[in-house]
Amino acid sequence: MKKKQNNRKEQLLFQRYGADSVPKNIIYNEQIDLLLSHRSVRKYLPDALPDGTIETIIAAAQSASNSSNLNQWSVIAITDPELKSEIAKTSRLGSKFGMGNPYIEQAPVFLLWIADMSRNNKISLVENETAQVLQYTDAFLMASIDTAIASQNAVVAAESLGLGIVYIGAMRNNAKEISVLLNLPDYSYVVFGMAVGKPDPTEVSRIRPRLSQNAVLHYNGYNKDRWLDEVTVYEKAFLEFREEIGLKNKSWQETVRFSSNDLTYMEGRENLRTTLQERGFKLL
Amino acid sequence: MKKKQNNRKEQLLFQRYGADSVPKNIIYNEQIDLLLSHRSVRKYLPDALPDGTIETIIAAAQSASNSSNLNQWSVIAITDPELKSEIAKTSRLGSKFGMGNPYIEQAPVFLLWIADMSRNNKISLVENETAQVLQYTDAFLMASIDTAIASQNAVVAAESLGLGIVYIGAMRNNAKEISVLLNLPDYSYVVFGMAVGKPDPTEVSRIRPRLSQNAVLHYNGYNKDRWLDEVTVYEKAFLEFREEIGLKNKSWQETVRFSSNDLTYMEGRENLRTTLQERGFKLL
Repeated sequence: MKKKQNNRKEQLLFQRYGADSVPKNIIYNEQIDLLLSHRSVRKYLPDALPDGTIETIIAAAQSASNSSNLNQWSVIAITDPELKSEIAKTSRLGSKFGMGNPYIEQAPVFLLWIADMSRNNKISLVENETAQVLQYTDAFLMASIDTAIASQNAVVAAESLGLGIVYIGAMRNNAKEISVLLNLPDYSYVVFGMAVGKPDPTEVSRIRPRLSQNAVLHYNGYNKDRWLDEVTVYEKAFLEFREEIGLKNKSWQETVRFSSNDLTYMEGRENLRTTLQERGFKLL
Repeated sequence: MKKKQNNRKEQLLFQRYGADSVPKNIIYNEQIDLLLSHRSVRKYLPDALPDGTIETIIAAAQSASNSSNLNQWSVIAITDPELKSEIAKTSRLGSKFGMGNPYIEQAPVFLLWIADMSRNNKISLVENETAQVLQYTDAFLMASIDTAIASQNAVVAAESLGLGIVYIGAMRNNAKEISVLLNLPDYSYVVFGMAVGKPDPTEVSRIRPRLSQNAVLHYNGYNKDRWLDEVTVYEKAFLEFREEIGLKNKSWQETVRFSSNDLTYMEGRENLRTTLQERGFKLL
């Protein structure tokens, strides 16, 4: 039993870091197994979610820490097929795939995670004409961070139930029209979407490798140069991953350069600041 | 066994939502038990973390989803007692408690979670003089979100090992000097800190209640008014919680008004945008 567990642990770490960067001394238990096993799911069975799934993953999300207990996020669960298609089209996710978006349309539920200062803004206007703290970048960031932290607890809960998820940051591509479509109040915006459903076992996929711990983990101060050598090692694991799941040969640094240098990567997200300001966030 | 489990589940949900708002149909397993059990720990034993703890929780963090696989975060683990004190002082957390900060100084490890576009900026400058995508608010937000999502996986891993944590958003109070103290490169900033350690069993604490699911969970569109009634119900659970752990009587809406209307709540975070811009993030 112990040996079988060790084999599984080694296999998970091997896939996550590549053969040359497996971290030592990793402690292992059932919860950690679940976390290390994560992969994004992009092909779903049409099965409905079991009763209580949404309530359960939202309870998990609400159990996460949040800044000053301000309860500054909301979720919209989209189950209506027409609305799902409309959302895929509005966020320009549809166009990428021709008709519709397979993640959103196949998955029985699409969750929209909303940084939501609208409740607290209304509560605060009883005393003032403007809730001045909410005008600052930090307040916006705080609500966005709290939403992200909560959402990851929902992911862990969903995966513990045998479900798969994929985050969709593209929900910010057209933040303006998405907000109108969903009837969002001022001082709120969709941070990201998340498809939730039963993974289709025919999907060709596996755990995606990350940079080595040497590149991202520092002790007692930031070491500015150590990551440089790690990137070369990472490229090997990255290429093996792409080959294995049938993607065309491309280096990680090429994907980084595209995402940093080419505005087409943003697909409209360059307008996010303007839209947020129209929606109440002053971002001072 | 089943009955014992049900009792525990009901107790966790009762504490999380208060007697009047316990959600129905919650599915339960060991992972979900761990998530529902979360509480922030603010009193630690001085015990060192077991060997491999940091590597394990970072492996969990790296296993979380991240935007376009860009690997845009780093962690600095602070174990040096003098540096911990320096950080508490610089972030103006010390002053609040007289000498030093008990969470940071008691806990054997203090993790600083860093949104880090510095690596990808350097990789991208090979092709261009400016990585234009990184100048936008969305790129900054993406790195911050990815950091938050990753950190929550670290929390789940740490708690599965019997450890406790508390997030410290106050690391942004004095973002400018904290960056200098830690030798952070441009295009990076500390999103938040996190104390990690063995909970001191003498701490008077419990699970903190949240707004009901009715207030935060919507279906197929946002319902703008439904939360209003829920706040009244929430105040009851909130007051009971404060009484139980010995805090003075104060309503949730009072805490919300203070945090939204009173700039003293920000403790310097009103300068975050200026500091971020000085550190490379243009926030267009």
